[in-house]
Amino acid sequence: MYVQVLTFLNEEKMNKVTVFAPATVANVNCGFDTLGFALEGVGDEMTLIKVPEKTITITSIDGADLPLETEKNVAGVAGLAMLNHLKLDYGFTITIKKGIPIGSGIGGSAASAAAAVFAINQFIDQPLSLQQLAVFGMKGETVASGSEHADNVAPSLFGGFTLIPGYNPFEVIALPVPSELFVAIIHPHIEIKTKEAREILPKEVPLKKAIEQSGNLAGFVSALYTDNYALLSRSCKDVLVAPHRKQLIPHFDTAKNMALNNGALAFGISGSGPSLFSLCRGELKAKEIAEKLKILYQNNNLEVDTIVSKVSEHGARVL
Amino acid sequence: MYVQVLTFLNEEKMNKVTVFAPATVANVNCGFDTLGFALEGVGDEMTLIKVPEKTITITSIDGADLPLETEKNVAGVAGLAMLNHLKLDYGFTITIKKGIPIGSGIGGSAASAAAAVFAINQFIDQPLSLQQLAVFGMKGETVASGSEHADNVAPSLFGGFTLIPGYNPFEVIALPVPSELFVAIIHPHIEIKTKEAREILPKEVPLKKAIEQSGNLAGFVSALYTDNYALLSRSCKDVLVAPHRKQLIPHFDTAKNMALNNGALAFGISGSGPSLFSLCRGELKAKEIAEKLKILYQNNNLEVDTIVSKVSEHGARVL
Repeated sequence: MYVQVLTFLNEEKMNKVTVFAPATVANVNCGFDTLGFALEGVGDEMTLIKVPEKTITITSIDGADLPLETEKNVAGVAGLAMLNHLKLDYGFTITIKKGIPIGSGIGGSAASAAAAVFAINQFIDQPLSLQQLAVFGMKGETVASGSEHADNVAPSLFGGFTLIPGYNPFEVIALPVPSELFVAIIHPHIEIKTKEAREILPKEVPLKKAIEQSGNLAGFVSALYTDNYALLSRSCKDVLVAPHRKQLIPHFDTAKNMALNNGALAFGISGSGPSLFSLCRGELKAKEIAEKLKILYQNNNLEVDTIVSKVSEHGARVL
Repeated sequence: MYVQVLTFLNEEKMNKVTVFAPATVANVNCGFDTLGFALEGVGDEMTLIKVPEKTITITSIDGADLPLETEKNVAGVAGLAMLNHLKLDYGFTITIKKGIPIGSGIGGSAASAAAAVFAINQFIDQPLSLQQLAVFGMKGETVASGSEHADNVAPSLFGGFTLIPGYNPFEVIALPVPSELFVAIIHPHIEIKTKEAREILPKEVPLKKAIEQSGNLAGFVSALYTDNYALLSRSCKDVLVAPHRKQLIPHFDTAKNMALNNGALAFGISGSGPSLFSLCRGELKAKEIAEKLKILYQNNNLEVDTIVSKVSEHGARVL
């Protein structure tokens, strides 16, 4: 009897859900392809309505020029993968409000994928774990980047910092977030193709550099557990990837020096760019760094926009 | 007046000190050149007596055939480096009881270096930090291996797990130790030269493997902070170094399979070998694994000895 009432309530409630999934910064210098974190308040909003047809129809996308065809849309592909796996006898229509500029490098496609699977999870009787959701979210990412990776999807679902130690078996570890950690994002209006950013990387790296990067990531993880901002700053370095990718981003070294000399804890490329992130202790410092970098780029006749955000403990959520 | 009394007591007490520094396991699979941990009870004992001559004289070494000449002895070199840096107007005679077999790969030279600098630190008015001591300890290591490294010296001084995220600046991070973590060490009586073990490694490694190893080390560090034995086990893998070095150790794969199939959390080469370590949850499991591996090697006509020890939170100490 009790169970029936619950089921009834569940069915009543669950014809429509609106969710939010945040923008994210992947790589974070020391954690190429493994580390990421979530922003606060910036992200994609998505409304799903349950329909009898066992498929997904994207009815509208606000805020970005993206394909409505289910198979060409990250939310559609991620949602379909989950739908098919669960063998649901219903489907959804989806409306999307993109809050993340396309191609900005702060996990726009991952947020849409995360939102879709997180929303579907609200409808089913035995919800999947966030880690299971990340697996379907990754399927969506293939549309955007051609390969399955979860370093944006995971923090968009989990919030906070996430570490993916490996894909075989696939695992997501939620790491603690120092409470005063903010980020200044600067998004220069240039285009970097993820594919190009991948191809610029060497297939082989010096063992010494590999060990150095590994020590940095381990130090960074320790810093998160111990609220050690000084160690966080010393560890958040990139000796493997940024040295190759920085040529894709105008004024990278100047911006880096400006951020670090003015008190940012760390500076680097968000994902494969073009956005740049500066981790800062406190919101004021993050605002100052964002403003300084904005002026730097404007003085060089490059349009930018900026985001200042707490490194958020919160991932995807129902609105 | 109070200060004078203290100084007086200090001088009285400090004509002689006996210290102990533990054996250690470096690399620990996922942390090549960065990670190490200390054993309990197995290590070197050293007695220093203050003398007016501003030098170090090694008067006897029990338990191993090692050079007495100060400049050829790790304890001598480490101690001299500290003596000269501090510009002390006195010196020491040293007697050493080696509790660690030479060339076994569990940090024998590092324990002697650590003991020497830790002992000297007891005599001086403003003792150095353990991290500062590690810098002088490293000087001793050059005698044994030809290069300055601290992945054995650091855990021998600090105890527990230590991480060295980098040498520039040099930094040691003390990591927490899960309370049920034990290690079974098996020491096959073969010789591996550290130099040879270094030369067998490639100068370059695939970026993919570097990222995988890095994710493993980060996962391992997270596991230590969260007492997560399952994650510890999944992360404690070596895709960079052991695949090259295992050819130096007879029956490596058989021993590894035996350890892991019988419930060891992790199995690998201690430092550059020939000792092999198996991390285990609980002392009973560690004893079982040690016994099984011993029989395996004996059946293959190779002499071995074994140690079963808690992963110790305690580093160098005054006896």
